[in-house]
Amino acid sequence: MAPRFTLAIEELQALLGDRLQTAAGVRQHHAQDESFHAPAEPDAVAFVRSTSEVSEVVRICRRHHMPVVPFGTGTAMEGGVNATQGGLSVDMSLMNKILSVSAQDMDCTVQAGVTRKQLNDHLRDQGIFFPIDPGADASLGGMAATRASGTNAVRYGTMREAVLGLTVVMADGRIVKTASRARKSAAGYDLTRLFVGSEGTLGVICEITLRLHPVPEAISAAVCAFDSLEGAVNSVIETIQMGVPMARIELLDSVAIDAVNRFSNTDYPALPHLFLEFHGTHAWVEEQAETVAALATENGGRNFQWTANTEERSALWQARHDLAYAARAMRDNAKIFSTDVCVPISRLAECILATADDIKTMPIPMPIVGHVGDGNFHVVPALDTSNAAEVAAVEAFHHRLIERALQMGGTCTGEHGIGQGKKDYLEAELPAGVEVMKQIKQALDPESLMNPGKVITL
Amino acid sequence: MAPRFTLAIEELQALLGDRLQTAAGVRQHHAQDESFHAPAEPDAVAFVRSTSEVSEVVRICRRHHMPVVPFGTGTAMEGGVNATQGGLSVDMSLMNKILSVSAQDMDCTVQAGVTRKQLNDHLRDQGIFFPIDPGADASLGGMAATRASGTNAVRYGTMREAVLGLTVVMADGRIVKTASRARKSAAGYDLTRLFVGSEGTLGVICEITLRLHPVPEAISAAVCAFDSLEGAVNSVIETIQMGVPMARIELLDSVAIDAVNRFSNTDYPALPHLFLEFHGTHAWVEEQAETVAALATENGGRNFQWTANTEERSALWQARHDLAYAARAMRDNAKIFSTDVCVPISRLAECILATADDIKTMPIPMPIVGHVGDGNFHVVPALDTSNAAEVAAVEAFHHRLIERALQMGGTCTGEHGIGQGKKDYLEAELPAGVEVMKQIKQALDPESLMNPGKVITL
Ligand SMILES: Cc1cc2nc3c(=O)[nH]c(=O)nc-3n(C[C@H](O)[C@H](O)[C@H](O)COP(=O)(O)OP(=O)(O)OC[C@H]3O[C@@H](n4cnc5c(N)ncnc54)[C@H](O)[C@@H]3O)c2cc1C
Ligand SMILES: Cc1cc2nc3c(=O)[nH]c(=O)nc-3n(C[C@H](O)[C@H](O)[C@H](O)COP(=O)(O)OP(=O)(O)OC[C@H]3O[C@@H](n4cnc5c(N)ncnc54)[C@H](O)[C@@H]3O)c2cc1C
Repeated sequence: MAPRFTLAIEELQALLGDRLQTAAGVRQHHAQDESFHAPAEPDAVAFVRSTSEVSEVVRICRRHHMPVVPFGTGTAMEGGVNATQGGLSVDMSLMNKILSVSAQDMDCTVQAGVTRKQLNDHLRDQGIFFPIDPGADASLGGMAATRASGTNAVRYGTMREAVLGLTVVMADGRIVKTASRARKSAAGYDLTRLFVGSEGTLGVICEITLRLHPVPEAISAAVCAFDSLEGAVNSVIETIQMGVPMARIELLDSVAIDAVNRFSNTDYPALPHLFLEFHGTHAWVEEQAETVAALATENGGRNFQWTANTEERSALWQARHDLAYAARAMRDNAKIFSTDVCVPISRLAECILATADDIKTMPIPMPIVGHVGDGNFHVVPALDTSNAAEVAAVEAFHHRLIERALQMGGTCTGEHGIGQGKKDYLEAELPAGVEVMKQIKQALDPESLMNPGKVITL
Repeated sequence: MAPRFTLAIEELQALLGDRLQTAAGVRQHHAQDESFHAPAEPDAVAFVRSTSEVSEVVRICRRHHMPVVPFGTGTAMEGGVNATQGGLSVDMSLMNKILSVSAQDMDCTVQAGVTRKQLNDHLRDQGIFFPIDPGADASLGGMAATRASGTNAVRYGTMREAVLGLTVVMADGRIVKTASRARKSAAGYDLTRLFVGSEGTLGVICEITLRLHPVPEAISAAVCAFDSLEGAVNSVIETIQMGVPMARIELLDSVAIDAVNRFSNTDYPALPHLFLEFHGTHAWVEEQAETVAALATENGGRNFQWTANTEERSALWQARHDLAYAARAMRDNAKIFSTDVCVPISRLAECILATADDIKTMPIPMPIVGHVGDGNFHVVPALDTSNAAEVAAVEAFHHRLIERALQMGGTCTGEHGIGQGKKDYLEAELPAGVEVMKQIKQALDPESLMNPGKVITL
């Protein structure tokens, strides 16, 4: 490939020195996320340090019509960081400063490259924490950009609820603050929520003000095995309908349990399981746990096992968080093909059972795992991308799964985003809505330089 | 005034028959909300019945360059429904059907003219309820349009969190669904949140899917008097920081208490008060209540009085909800001038105390009342709008109050919206943000026909 954007790269080099990289290894590292989507290298990678630097970088790129692709930690699932039209990968990892924490207000402001674990390590002794936990140690910028969630969204919400305000660099280099630090506001259009979930296509998120939560007095976790998927799912539905404020309520089917046992050296029985967590005061946690244990028992739950201490609890959730890696490890050289539908909870049992039937027709093992308290679940096949027939079969399965979810009033992605993989499904889900999204994209990024080709096609 | 938009009105009449009204009384009724802003009559009022009818109405208006001003119940506080450029008031009151309720999913879909009390009456026997409660019995479309909240936003969130999806008619008549019925989604830009809080300037909200909540097993309310405002506010701050999930925690200063006593025939001591409510299981409510009572006592709270039953509790909250009317009733022929700042809770005591000092310099009584768990409070002078000196003094006070809130990292409106009254303050709060809002408005409503002159000026 002949060098492109040479003038832009020269200007960027003058600005950033050796924080502008064009070495093949660096470009390859920025060519893909954790998904099966084909890698696509950027022409250069900028390691930015500050919001004003991002602004200058974007201005240079705009002058030279060079695409700008923000890069957090590259753990996403729909090929969002892959530079499908080349251009500049803007790596946020050096923007890793925690700018302020207010324990009184239970909020903090961080640079976009700070990761969720880094933030929680920092907060450790202050009695507050940041709940949202995608399995990976993702950047908070990437999490905001994908509207991420994770195991405890059922209690604490997603990045939609967690972000109080952003500082964003727009396609023309303008620096925009989207909101004050107030907990609630009716001041104009909700720019914060417009950028949360925009996957780098409307601007680069540089600073984030986040809502934090008090560390609960008591935390208690448990696992429970079920004879049937149905029993497990119905326990979840009844628990939510009772109004029990579950902190976590995760489903793993028997294939997923098998993958976890192998990858994380656990020995759960090869049955569908719920992994649960309760937060509150001691008495309140006990009461919640009793209620849920009773509901689970009525639905055929057994082997209700409490984790006795913090280490056991951490190990439990680490095993759950590693599920995608555990699925991948089931085969050699496999890539993760993660599906991600979310349906109204009244349809969840039906949707999961139909999907389980469908999986029986598939040539490869496909674990089901889910944040089922929200109606969100994943099927995570480990894909041999060199096997065309297998890829075709999994893609056809994926298509059926999404159609099923949409027919039930659900969405084609609960938390991973659209990226390059789900643009057609977004159109199927919200045909008129996509037209409005295009108008907004056109207005804010008329040359389509911000992560072009992702989410929507102009 | 010479008749305007005569051709448009003819076409509208052909479509709507006698649901298109131009009578003076009807136009006057649609000329203003509950605020002090000068009335401004529309040229005609359309009583629409369905989403497709709204679409046709908007198409006619667009062809004739006639402004479109949605009208819910006209209870808002910033002159949003006042037809400052004339045009068509689109009255949503006949769009009052509850289209579906799913107790299993804890959601419902309603037409925009359904009011919050109508919805809760309908839900009464199903074990679920809709929490958000501005003092007035507002329409759910108006509440979505203003991003409204109320006394229990501290626990259940605002309309931002309550709305799962919308059906909107855009400026060109297109009908757009903004989201699926899934609880969470990462599918594209968050159009739902873009329309929530847009105050009719981007389109007419026709249908709303709302999140509902299980009616708690136990509800307990209380009032508590304090010697000082500071003690009351500090109790709130400490309660929130402890993570007690208050359902309601409302502050009334002694002037507000005096207004309530007179308007609602109550006999609270003339001191600052907190009005409180707890939701949960019986044991859990008791535990929360003990924690908060202890915190209040430490901060000089006394006369902690529990309400024994549902009627007493309803009376308590009705009195609180009527505060704006109670304030207005303090004087003859007064209009409500409701201020509405919201600050980070760490600055709340300081902000309220400085405001109380400022009030001492004012010529008229000015109650302070607030949803203080969110950092949101109102000063509610009853204004004699015919007294220019008084209006000027209150406007100058208002200006000082907002500057104070913005300097503390707060917002110029926690829940009432921008309307016509706060456009300059929105610019002061989010100068670069307003430019982005204008780009969005320009893209979606290039002729500025949707509630023109509100929120932003193109
Ligand atoms: C094992 C595993 C488990 C996972 N579990 C979950 C889960 O439970 N829930 C969940 O939601 N996700 C999950 N994910 C997916 C992934 O972790 C999330 O999508 C995460 O939010 C991505 O963050 P990142 O920093 O890696 O973003 P990246 O992959 O670097 O980028 C993702 C997208 O956001 C854009 N972007 C990144 N940073 C910025 C910025 N500062 N400004 C603007 N745009 C930006 C990129 O251009 C790209 O389009 C999992 C992934 C793995 C590998
Ligand atoms: C006594 C009293 C107490 C109050 N307490 C609170 C409170 O605690 N919290 C709070 O948030 N507010 C409160 N308010 C203000 C008011 O009730 C809210 O702003 C409410 O949301 C307005 O709803 P509405 O139906 O009356 O809207 P309207 O006043 O009719 O309209 C408000 C704005 O929304 C637009 N609009 C209305 N319907 C639609 C639609 N379908 N589509 C698009 N745009 C539309 C209008 O054009 C206008 O700009 C109070 C008001 C009173 C009188």
